[in-house]
Amino acid sequence: MIKINENFLKLQAGYLFPEVGRRVRAYKEQNPAAKIISMGVGDVTQPLAPAIIKAMKKAVDEMSHKETFRGYDDGGVGYEFLRKAISENDFKARRIDIDIDEIVISDGSKCDTGNMQEIFGLDNVIAVTDPVYPVYVDTNVMAGRTSGAAGKGRYEGIVYMPCTEENNFVPEPPKEQVDLIYLCFPNNPTGAVATKQQLAKWVDYARKNKAIILFDAAYEEYISEADIPHSIYEVDGAKEVAIEFRSFSKTAGFTGVRCAFAVVPRQLVAYTKDGRAVEVNPIWKRRQCTKFNGVSYITQAGAAAVYTEEGKKQIKETIDIYMGNAKLIRETLSKIGYTVYGGVNAPYIWLKTPEGVSSWDFFGTLLKKARVISTPGAGFGSAGEGYVRLTAFAQPESVKEALERIKLCSA
Amino acid sequence: MIKINENFLKLQAGYLFPEVGRRVRAYKEQNPAAKIISMGVGDVTQPLAPAIIKAMKKAVDEMSHKETFRGYDDGGVGYEFLRKAISENDFKARRIDIDIDEIVISDGSKCDTGNMQEIFGLDNVIAVTDPVYPVYVDTNVMAGRTSGAAGKGRYEGIVYMPCTEENNFVPEPPKEQVDLIYLCFPNNPTGAVATKQQLAKWVDYARKNKAIILFDAAYEEYISEADIPHSIYEVDGAKEVAIEFRSFSKTAGFTGVRCAFAVVPRQLVAYTKDGRAVEVNPIWKRRQCTKFNGVSYITQAGAAAVYTEEGKKQIKETIDIYMGNAKLIRETLSKIGYTVYGGVNAPYIWLKTPEGVSSWDFFGTLLKKARVISTPGAGFGSAGEGYVRLTAFAQPESVKEALERIKLCSA
Repeated sequence: MIKINENFLKLQAGYLFPEVGRRVRAYKEQNPAAKIISMGVGDVTQPLAPAIIKAMKKAVDEMSHKETFRGYDDGGVGYEFLRKAISENDFKARRIDIDIDEIVISDGSKCDTGNMQEIFGLDNVIAVTDPVYPVYVDTNVMAGRTSGAAGKGRYEGIVYMPCTEENNFVPEPPKEQVDLIYLCFPNNPTGAVATKQQLAKWVDYARKNKAIILFDAAYEEYISEADIPHSIYEVDGAKEVAIEFRSFSKTAGFTGVRCAFAVVPRQLVAYTKDGRAVEVNPIWKRRQCTKFNGVSYITQAGAAAVYTEEGKKQIKETIDIYMGNAKLIRETLSKIGYTVYGGVNAPYIWLKTPEGVSSWDFFGTLLKKARVISTPGAGFGSAGEGYVRLTAFAQPESVKEALERIKLCSA
Repeated sequence: MIKINENFLKLQAGYLFPEVGRRVRAYKEQNPAAKIISMGVGDVTQPLAPAIIKAMKKAVDEMSHKETFRGYDDGGVGYEFLRKAISENDFKARRIDIDIDEIVISDGSKCDTGNMQEIFGLDNVIAVTDPVYPVYVDTNVMAGRTSGAAGKGRYEGIVYMPCTEENNFVPEPPKEQVDLIYLCFPNNPTGAVATKQQLAKWVDYARKNKAIILFDAAYEEYISEADIPHSIYEVDGAKEVAIEFRSFSKTAGFTGVRCAFAVVPRQLVAYTKDGRAVEVNPIWKRRQCTKFNGVSYITQAGAAAVYTEEGKKQIKETIDIYMGNAKLIRETLSKIGYTVYGGVNAPYIWLKTPEGVSSWDFFGTLLKKARVISTPGAGFGSAGEGYVRLTAFAQPESVKEALERIKLCSA
């Protein structure tokens, strides 16, 4: 008799965003004429940059001639031309020594952050922030690192580190021993960033405890303040204890094109039960070349164009549009009396709901009264209760209209 | 202390194809002038069909305008336009009732066949053919369904079903109870096909034993004989017990573009330990929307063009080229005294090595004497010992030259 993986049955009803989608669809069915503005799912709206389009068209052309046709991306870790551009522009230009062999191209940071836990033992203790990007938690539930269903949005077997107004949404390392730590800065959903000193504390903790940090830097391109680190490898010693995730999704509008990468440094090790050190880099590559088969050549050609002079200028212009939205959201909502966080180094605004109003209720109010989609903070964890997340990715004219509507119904 | 997943350490040194690649590179380094012809890795060489190129260029254009730009593929299961084309052309046209909600688009059959085991319990007994596509086995080893290292290429905890000349490379269902069965027809690596009667035995077995069949039909487009089933769902009752995998890789030259799909019928169930039936379709979708984020819109637009009248005609022309190669390989090798199988309904030829010569030795001989890359049968399992696999995907002029060379050094 075929047995289901019962860990899947522990998961809460739906992944957060499909649940938001269901509620929005239900509202639309009852109000078919309503013009809804989405500031919910973190999806981009600006088109791909001309340099990327040009590179992708050239790549499509190459696929139409047998002389230039490309089949399997040998080894499935990504073309060297892309890994070289990443190594030089994202790391060496910031004096971080990351070699092309330490970079593994993938089809998304959701995939990478979701899959990475597979190469580590089931008996590791996982630590996540609260609120947290749901993928980190759900993939560990599926793997069997938690027991039973979530009570109050929390699973037994995971160490949750609350991010609150008190700690400015950047937690201290825990008192107890944990083994695998998920950190995301600039943060989704709070928009908070960590200073180099704060990250250094985490690197120290990991080195002392032989832990590994999974550092999600998918939003690093949105950092506007000069002293905020773009990579955890700006901290000395981080290469011994950290894997970093980067994505073209928010950097270059690749949510519908799919390209990202993981940095797995050569010196990073994990241990067998009897204490023998094992290099993590070849294990991750073995996982990828067995369960994954590389990213479309056309996509990789487009991603490489992000690093050309033209490409850099063009993606900056797009990010400036989104960060202009973020500034307007922050300032407008503050002016009308809301408490807001984030939106300075991240495309997310973390909006405190009015006293006594729950996340899902405020989500419902924004939907029904302002016809604006937000994401309920409670969906990201119990410490997210009392907040909603707004994204800065809508068209500027839509953002202005959304803010006018929120103003009106908050008056 | 962070523990590695020690199941990864059970895996044999390398995934088969990287190992072949290493040996070929070593040969090339010593013989830099040698003109090597690959009939090894099953990678295609013909360019994408004009209809696909046209559709992909249009899709790239759409991504360059904010009015037509596409971000996340909502839900990550694939665009409806593609699932609709698949449902109508691959299934309804053959009188098989597969609905769009039963089709989940992915970035490859390697990924799908590798990931599918995750949603089933670790205590299921897995059955695979021997020889076998290594991904089926390796992903179960990684998950922890086997104990210890492989002895003679076999892992304890897996039921191996030998495919030999005696059973014409199609095994009978096993005597013992197994829970999850991997079948691949047309077969990689042997090129064998199963008749409808043979598949019906498997469906019967699965229904009686409450087992699930994972049916890999990545090569169905290569079937040339009229009475060979293209889908396991041509067998009555198969929708209750089978998941089918299809791919655009070999059908339409998508090895470097990445698109495939899994069919997970609505009536398919697995069981909790206490015997409660659980629908598999929503569990697979939950897995995909958590650990995967959809396929590039450009790729999906290209895949949909495969189903246009133009597209169908053009991909048939390409497959005819490959199957012309297959015929030539079969006939030439037979003529010079080799025993060969496959190559009629599949792009693979299963070549019996001369008496007493091992797979890896014959691989070495073909490489050094004929400068032809093959794949050692033993790499696919212990029953593959004494064979090498040749693929029909090279350019026709290369295939002719390769055969001339093999003739010469076999004389």
